[in-house]
Amino acid sequence: MCALTQPGAIMPNAIVPDATIPERHPAAMARIVMKFGGTSVADLDRIRIVADRVAREVEAGHEVAVVTSAMAGATNQLVAWCQALAPLHDAREYDVVLATGEQAVTGLLAIALQTRGIEARSWQGWQIPIRTDGAHGRARITAIDGAEIIRRMQIGQVAVVSGFQGLGPDNRVTTLGRGGSDTSAVALAAAIGADRCDIYTDVDGIYTTDPRIVPRARKLDRIAYEEMLELASVGAKVLHTRSVELAMNHRVRVRVLSSFADASDDNQGTLVVDEDEIVEKQIVSGIAYSRDEAKITLRQVPDRPGIAAAIFTALAAHHVNIDMIVQNISADGSTDLTFTVGRADLARARATLAEAQPQIGYLEIVADANVAKISVVGTGMRSHAGVANTMFRALADKAINIQVISTSEIKVSVLIAADYAELAVRALHTAYGLDA
Amino acid sequence: MCALTQPGAIMPNAIVPDATIPERHPAAMARIVMKFGGTSVADLDRIRIVADRVAREVEAGHEVAVVTSAMAGATNQLVAWCQALAPLHDAREYDVVLATGEQAVTGLLAIALQTRGIEARSWQGWQIPIRTDGAHGRARITAIDGAEIIRRMQIGQVAVVSGFQGLGPDNRVTTLGRGGSDTSAVALAAAIGADRCDIYTDVDGIYTTDPRIVPRARKLDRIAYEEMLELASVGAKVLHTRSVELAMNHRVRVRVLSSFADASDDNQGTLVVDEDEIVEKQIVSGIAYSRDEAKITLRQVPDRPGIAAAIFTALAAHHVNIDMIVQNISADGSTDLTFTVGRADLARARATLAEAQPQIGYLEIVADANVAKISVVGTGMRSHAGVANTMFRALADKAINIQVISTSEIKVSVLIAADYAELAVRALHTAYGLDA
Repeated sequence: MCALTQPGAIMPNAIVPDATIPERHPAAMARIVMKFGGTSVADLDRIRIVADRVAREVEAGHEVAVVTSAMAGATNQLVAWCQALAPLHDAREYDVVLATGEQAVTGLLAIALQTRGIEARSWQGWQIPIRTDGAHGRARITAIDGAEIIRRMQIGQVAVVSGFQGLGPDNRVTTLGRGGSDTSAVALAAAIGADRCDIYTDVDGIYTTDPRIVPRARKLDRIAYEEMLELASVGAKVLHTRSVELAMNHRVRVRVLSSFADASDDNQGTLVVDEDEIVEKQIVSGIAYSRDEAKITLRQVPDRPGIAAAIFTALAAHHVNIDMIVQNISADGSTDLTFTVGRADLARARATLAEAQPQIGYLEIVADANVAKISVVGTGMRSHAGVANTMFRALADKAINIQVISTSEIKVSVLIAADYAELAVRALHTAYGLDA
Repeated sequence: MCALTQPGAIMPNAIVPDATIPERHPAAMARIVMKFGGTSVADLDRIRIVADRVAREVEAGHEVAVVTSAMAGATNQLVAWCQALAPLHDAREYDVVLATGEQAVTGLLAIALQTRGIEARSWQGWQIPIRTDGAHGRARITAIDGAEIIRRMQIGQVAVVSGFQGLGPDNRVTTLGRGGSDTSAVALAAAIGADRCDIYTDVDGIYTTDPRIVPRARKLDRIAYEEMLELASVGAKVLHTRSVELAMNHRVRVRVLSSFADASDDNQGTLVVDEDEIVEKQIVSGIAYSRDEAKITLRQVPDRPGIAAAIFTALAAHHVNIDMIVQNISADGSTDLTFTVGRADLARARATLAEAQPQIGYLEIVADANVAKISVVGTGMRSHAGVANTMFRALADKAINIQVISTSEIKVSVLIAADYAELAVRALHTAYGLDA
């Protein structure tokens, strides 16, 4: 039920224009997109540090394009202004207001780069242009014309590009929604045929699980796109999901690394790449958990065709997203149907189902918000049996009861009582041999 | 010596495209541009007040376009950031940073108007486009395509346009320099054939002189463009000079009025119009004064051809602007040459002249920063004799010594000791019958 596993449906494949992307200059080491988030450009001092980082890549002989967010806090201020004027404001004007945050930073960073002797210029979404659809506030990139930026990179100019924004079909400013700067960076990397898209963030890479829960969690050198998607969608919120989908579709090699590490540190981060680039595959790459879900069981639902469709259509109409679904065989013409929704949606889901009770004809609703979802993720599962069994045995050894089980090709998820979440994660991290 | 009296050289006449501006809708009362400065949009509360003002004009049946500045203080913050990163920063990037201030306000004001049931949309310089030359940081508007805005005004949409900014020949963002939003408003009014351009400011109109000096100063109902230019350039800093020149060139009727007055107040302001529109001409419309000048006398300059050119070329090369110049007949082959410069330029002017002493061959420099320039301005002077004489007699009656005299077609200026400035203004205000 998770749209995140259907990347083709979300992001068109047409971002790279038909024109062949020219080879980079023979002297250039690599063509790199560097993306910096809001905390990395939070003030002038941090912008200067970003300029130093970019300067090092330029001095190493790389062709560089930079994608930046707005200063941390700036976007929140702009959003607050819009909401204060009108809780339900015109999304087109909201985009006009929000896009100023990134624009200011591109100009400032270009100036900071110039003081370091680097030729740099700023680019707004409308100037490149970064074309998007017309869904203001949550637009999707449809095409980027990278030709002019490539031409300038080849003669040594650094492009400083506003993330998060684009130009809609009506030539108005659009924004991509929260986290959209990651998507901007990956889309630009695809459009200019970059060797790598470096996402500078406040963590130094992707870990086998949350190090706050498992101190022995290990940083992964590499992770496959599919694994990253499964980890992100269940709680490892480092990269914006849409950016990972886009990277997968266009085979953009993404590196997640820390914007706070010193230059001297080992700051190689984690490379998110195609499965084929990972030589030594782990059966399980990581353990994810989420406490943001709630479980709903409909007791004694009539077991007849179309009943599931009726239930989930009603919920979709009220914008309730469904995650796991379990239905068992029926007894006496009725069955119990269990599924999970986002915890924030629980009240709305209950109200919707209560209203639809006459049509659906279930006996009662049982809801439980006190649950956690634990997932083990790994492309190695495809070729190894017994992965799920290892999970079930490890949980049984700790006397943790499994309420719901859901599997995909590279993931096994279980729902358990929330109190046991950390214990379960630690047990599984050890059981799959992930401890450092 | 003042370029401000040569408007044709400053602002091309081609802002209005060749296409004929369509007549307004028969039902529309008038087509109006409303311009609000930074203090008028300083925060959300003030933006709401602006929205109320715009709503009143729309409800009165007018077609309205709004031109706004950035929030007061926002531009200073952005300038400070640029300067902190690099004292000599790229003007193109500076423009990218500064233009965000107006952009944010247009979006916010459009939202505020929409909550009042008014259809409104924001426009940035690049969207219209407002074409400028490539002089970043102090660009001049070259052309505005008003067609789409007119089309939308005719169907009831309010255009909320970013002042102060445009699109340069290289498709990069330009800004017009401080006070440029007035120019944006007048240029837009010309391009869309507006009946009137209302400049909302922190004064309620143009006065016969500074009311802080002469409490009996009167607000003028109307003033001619030429008078406004002369008053502005000598101290009445209400309207940006370039905007007045532009209004004169395109015969845009400009109204200066208070953005702080209540709707119920008599807030008709002052209309700046063509001389022909002023039926009852005053001989003198206003008295201006300036303390920003300094007087320099070069004693015993050799009286030979080319000597004045040598002096003023040297000063111009060091960006010293000259205002008044007086040269008397020579005696014994040499003469005294007196002129005024901006007080802030006095040190630079002295250094320049000292360096050029061998070429010029004067005996000594006498400088005096303790002077004031008093001007009487009025288009009525053209047809009335004795205007200057009234001035001289009024000053003599107060025993005020005149150091330098300079006249133009509609202005008589004198330089006097700074201590007497206020006394002189009051005496002249009475002498010309301007007291309320």
